Amino acid sequence: MRIGIYGYGNLGRGVELAIRQNPDAELAGIFSRRDPATVKTLTGAPVYSAADVKQFADKIDVMIICGGSASDLPEMTPMLAASFNVIDSFDTHARIPEHFANVDRAAAETGHTALISAGWDPGLFSLARIYLNSVLPDGKDYTFWGRGVSQGHSDAIRRIPGVRDARQYTVPVEDALSRVRDGETPELTTRQKHTRECYVVAEEGADKALIEKQIKEMPNYFADYDTTVTFISMDEMKRNHSELPHGGQVIRSGRTGLDNEHRHVVEFSLKLDSNPEFTASVLIACARAVNRLNSRGDCGCKTLFDIAPADLSPMDPAELRKKLL
Amino acid sequence: MRIGIYGYGNLGRGVELAIRQNPDAELAGIFSRRDPATVKTLTGAPVYSAADVKQFADKIDVMIICGGSASDLPEMTPMLAASFNVIDSFDTHARIPEHFANVDRAAAETGHTALISAGWDPGLFSLARIYLNSVLPDGKDYTFWGRGVSQGHSDAIRRIPGVRDARQYTVPVEDALSRVRDGETPELTTRQKHTRECYVVAEEGADKALIEKQIKEMPNYFADYDTTVTFISMDEMKRNHSELPHGGQVIRSGRTGLDNEHRHVVEFSLKLDSNPEFTASVLIACARAVNRLNSRGDCGCKTLFDIAPADLSPMDPAELRKKLL
Repeated sequence: MRIGIYGYGNLGRGVELAIRQNPDAELAGIFSRRDPATVKTLTGAPVYSAADVKQFADKIDVMIICGGSASDLPEMTPMLAASFNVIDSFDTHARIPEHFANVDRAAAETGHTALISAGWDPGLFSLARIYLNSVLPDGKDYTFWGRGVSQGHSDAIRRIPGVRDARQYTVPVEDALSRVRDGETPELTTRQKHTRECYVVAEEGADKALIEKQIKEMPNYFADYDTTVTFISMDEMKRNHSELPHGGQVIRSGRTGLDNEHRHVVEFSLKLDSNPEFTASVLIACARAVNRLNSRGDCGCKTLFDIAPADLSPMDPAELRKKLL
Repeated sequence: MRIGIYGYGNLGRGVELAIRQNPDAELAGIFSRRDPATVKTLTGAPVYSAADVKQFADKIDVMIICGGSASDLPEMTPMLAASFNVIDSFDTHARIPEHFANVDRAAAETGHTALISAGWDPGLFSLARIYLNSVLPDGKDYTFWGRGVSQGHSDAIRRIPGVRDARQYTVPVEDALSRVRDGETPELTTRQKHTRECYVVAEEGADKALIEKQIKEMPNYFADYDTTVTFISMDEMKRNHSELPHGGQVIRSGRTGLDNEHRHVVEFSLKLDSNPEFTASVLIACARAVNRLNSRGDCGCKTLFDIAPADLSPMDPAELRKKLL
């Protein structure tokens, strides 16, 4: 399958690398809104102007859209779904129904197949939630994130005057995690589930106490959490915080039995050295499924909930039953 | 959906209980090879003779077959698939291709839908393997079982002369487990992955040393493992070993990056108080999918690899996207 990458940031670079690990995929081109001449790719792959993308309709089987959920994807995915089979990693939960409807309309009208909200959350974590809710109806589930870098929270700190650079780690509260793992089903507030660790490089002469106060009181991002702020040098930032690790777990705890006397705890967990590279790897498996669905005439918008697992795998069904069942 | 239970042992009882947790399922009848008059059910559900099962073809949407993999299911599932949509938990890995072909033929010829090898391994663990192999192509995965009761190994001990009762626990080797969790990809022998703990009630006057020797040297079951044998009283057996807990984990460790510099470790784990009740819960979710596939005209034999997750859930697609994606 010939893959296009639309948008060349961390995720786009991850897709570029992931294609090399999948012998059934080849990179047809990277599309950027920047001047292609200024974009240097990791593997020497060709870069084209995003403005010319529609000329590639016959040369690309699946376009992987690597834009942001806030403003890019709500425009890009429906627009591109009119010319390509597409995948995105749209993660603004509240707006998924609206985004799904827009993409579905564009894809169905033009005979394309789209898969939105792919990655690990939404994505693999959503799969854990749907399987575990289906097999343990009487239960409760919890999603924890971290320890890992939240790019959105890091960006929010960088917008504070006097901040040169910042990295924010989301960290699950160990006590909450171990209670849930032990099969308890506590009601947990936002503050009881995660803490936020911020590493900040301040500009020379900046008022550090004021920066710390502005971070800790920032609504939505930090005010509801126990937040720690540590000022470090740019040197230390580069040395210790240049990677984008992440992870987390979905845990469902449920009961069965004549009198609900048996407890079951199921956990799906990730420890990722590189959030964008892992997400990109998931997107390639999804591209395989989208390509297959489209060739079977199954058009419109999908999510991972609609995809039979066999369609994500390069193995054929008999081999899958033999090796992985 | 109207569910039938064919075979009334531990798993059949689990299905009987699981149906009560799923408002869209009702129990149409239990079929036993024993005299129905002698079978007392947990919930007072009606019991019929297995010999009369074909008379119920119009009264049952999905038959859940609760027999053993060694001799029951290879006969029962193809036979029943000619009259019913069916589910089984066939777990003899080496014979899955042959069993699949037999069931597929019987179901396809008669317009029925079958799903074989459902439960947790094969079943949820197989799903973990297929998803993780698909999204991390450059990696290695490990399946650990336990700590939990292996009914097959317990039965094998009970067949030794002088043994009144026995319970065998399969236990993962902590050191191997933590190495794999840390992202190492060691080559592990059978002995390095699991140990076997046996609790045995001997008949009065039996030669305990001989029993222990016979257990530890039993080929396939125990000879390749570090096995411990503890003799206990019947009282202690009843007090401490009457439950059927189990569990385990699938862990896949893989790499991405320009020079494979990023490591990712993904784990799916279960801690189950009751192996048969949890397995039964999985089977009910599968029955929902089988019923839906059949009503869409999708006949023949399937495994969980062929089932889109949305088909396992009682929620409709829009609700799923809103609540679980």
